Amino acid sequence: MFDALALRAQFPLLIRAPELIYLDNAATTQKPLVVLDAERHFYETANANVHRGSHRLAVAATDAFEGARSSVARFINAASSNEIVFTRGATEAINLVAQSWGGANLHAGDEILLSTLEHHANIVPWQMLATRCGAIIKPVRLLSDGSLDIEHFHSLLSTKTKLVGLAHISNAIGSELPIADLIAAAHRVGAKVLIDGAQAVAHKVIDVQALDADFYVFSSHKVYGPTGIGALWARADILADMPPWQGGGEMIERVSFEVTSYAPAPARFEAGTPAIAQSVGFAAALDWLSAQDRSAIAQHEDALRLQLEQGLRQIDGLRIIGNAAQKGPVVSIAFSDAHPYDVAQFLDARNIAVRVGSHCAQPLLNSLGLKGTLRASFAAYNTSADVEALLAGLSETLELLA
Amino acid sequence: MFDALALRAQFPLLIRAPELIYLDNAATTQKPLVVLDAERHFYETANANVHRGSHRLAVAATDAFEGARSSVARFINAASSNEIVFTRGATEAINLVAQSWGGANLHAGDEILLSTLEHHANIVPWQMLATRCGAIIKPVRLLSDGSLDIEHFHSLLSTKTKLVGLAHISNAIGSELPIADLIAAAHRVGAKVLIDGAQAVAHKVIDVQALDADFYVFSSHKVYGPTGIGALWARADILADMPPWQGGGEMIERVSFEVTSYAPAPARFEAGTPAIAQSVGFAAALDWLSAQDRSAIAQHEDALRLQLEQGLRQIDGLRIIGNAAQKGPVVSIAFSDAHPYDVAQFLDARNIAVRVGSHCAQPLLNSLGLKGTLRASFAAYNTSADVEALLAGLSETLELLA
Repeated sequence: MFDALALRAQFPLLIRAPELIYLDNAATTQKPLVVLDAERHFYETANANVHRGSHRLAVAATDAFEGARSSVARFINAASSNEIVFTRGATEAINLVAQSWGGANLHAGDEILLSTLEHHANIVPWQMLATRCGAIIKPVRLLSDGSLDIEHFHSLLSTKTKLVGLAHISNAIGSELPIADLIAAAHRVGAKVLIDGAQAVAHKVIDVQALDADFYVFSSHKVYGPTGIGALWARADILADMPPWQGGGEMIERVSFEVTSYAPAPARFEAGTPAIAQSVGFAAALDWLSAQDRSAIAQHEDALRLQLEQGLRQIDGLRIIGNAAQKGPVVSIAFSDAHPYDVAQFLDARNIAVRVGSHCAQPLLNSLGLKGTLRASFAAYNTSADVEALLAGLSETLELLA
Repeated sequence: MFDALALRAQFPLLIRAPELIYLDNAATTQKPLVVLDAERHFYETANANVHRGSHRLAVAATDAFEGARSSVARFINAASSNEIVFTRGATEAINLVAQSWGGANLHAGDEILLSTLEHHANIVPWQMLATRCGAIIKPVRLLSDGSLDIEHFHSLLSTKTKLVGLAHISNAIGSELPIADLIAAAHRVGAKVLIDGAQAVAHKVIDVQALDADFYVFSSHKVYGPTGIGALWARADILADMPPWQGGGEMIERVSFEVTSYAPAPARFEAGTPAIAQSVGFAAALDWLSAQDRSAIAQHEDALRLQLEQGLRQIDGLRIIGNAAQKGPVVSIAFSDAHPYDVAQFLDARNIAVRVGSHCAQPLLNSLGLKGTLRASFAAYNTSADVEALLAGLSETLELLA
């Protein structure tokens, strides 16, 4: 049996605020002490700029930074740490792929398949690319339970499809997509696949080689790590052919005013001083999570979701949005009469932190005929008591607002 | 009289390593305790995702993040915090301007003036833009003392000039450019000016309104703040007309698969979850520095540079590269016979950290007929004893290598 309270005791913010019921983990997670300590330890013992170092501190900083890259590679079972590019987060990683790989490989009439449940971060960069190059975006519909309409996916997939962009788990309604099957189908028509793993990495063990994706992106701050950093994984042969995106230090081989040549990946995509201390904290978070019983955490989080969904079905005046058979620990709620923002304010007064709105997924919410939902999302440190408090808070609030 | 030792006592890494003589401050500075504490305090008391918040923690995080933006604006006397865009650092800020503003405003035949002493970060993004749009880069020569050849600058400036890119202070040889005059001249022909302030902000009080620049960029980690964050300042009217660069959450007004509209600046340029905790540390660094006697720090740093330069003139087998009348606290050294890398290794064994190489300024080094130099660069916590140690170390090393 997984001991969530023991885990919770490793999180300074949760210790300082024992009354807080934090159910906004899909927006960002809290950080365990080992992560805060790792970043601080770097600043106090090894802070220097990386690479080109001619002194021991610079060597220590470089070792810490490249060691962090190895931790990220290990966490998703990448074939090599050279397949890991550090970015500010999942959003920047998708923009990098869209502007560099997409700019070089997509042309007028090419098609980009995106699911209707994508986060804006996996829509807008492709729209900007499509506007520039004349590619066409094809949205894949959902079934009424919030799962992907697989038949519609296959009907849209063709040799015109150059890129398929899919969330591993929906941040707004929790649906988990059967990405291994979808990747295999996309590859049969010669399309590349980018998986937005922002909502998956904290909950599922990821093996990019087994998934056989082309690009997998995620953010540190949603997997117990610091803000300001994330990762793009891409297959080595794809990265090798991608043109640079941002120019500056580190990413060049040789510069003159006449001609400039670029370094191989991943350096080619990391212009300027990177987020060095954050890479150390990111790696500490991934190493910490990997040392936990991940299967037990996944079961625990799924049990919390099922407990919440079961309880919600007993409350009048609301419904669960997203009832896919496979879901991550995300529960979205719509109300018959109450405004979700009002409900969230009442919950906040009871120290329950949830998120309301369109969750950066307006096309999804529009397709559901909704303006917004109230979303509760779990992490490993949440407990059954948190779910009970939310259910009690919702019941009371809806009575008060009635 | 400025008390560098008292200041030094505020830096945990320097306390832990009292034997360390850290003279690589142009690469990155060490961080005072208040900066490390500010970032940690954020994670322990206010960590949540920003904006769209429906609970108190999200409001606290948003207040911290937007408060940090105000600190940055105050630090450089921007007219409004809406003129501050958070980026990963100076390099990303220049890429943002080159790709967004440059992409929209530069056309075939337009000219970009850059000084020969620019860091690669202020060359390569403009080369990439020029390759795409057919603009032409015109390098401005230096005089033999490493100062800008002002006559050559004026001779290249014309109504064809659309952008002038200049370092405020050279990272490689320390020259300070007379940017106020150069900006005024550029404006007379209708050109915009980007100033790379990465090496200036730790040493000089910056007033972007008085300078009347169009863009001013800098990195947090070179001004006593965390890695992973920096700032672009741009005049509000220029930012207002710039198209978005990266797509994602936060930067949109409305998204559908048919059409997307964008938020006003600065949000339009901050796609995805920003470097929230780092913004708090960045602001703490700027507020901390502003609370010091900056004029005394500038005098102290200049005295260290002059002490070093005077001592170097007594040592055979080396020469100072860069003897401009106006210099920042950066001293570059070339050796008659010794390889700079070998010298740095010997210094490192004496706990003296300096940098060697082309300092991401290959065109400058090429123009000087050099492959690399050894560079010592000062921060407020350096002392006269540090300079003496470096001079003694250099003398001994050159004797050993002779």
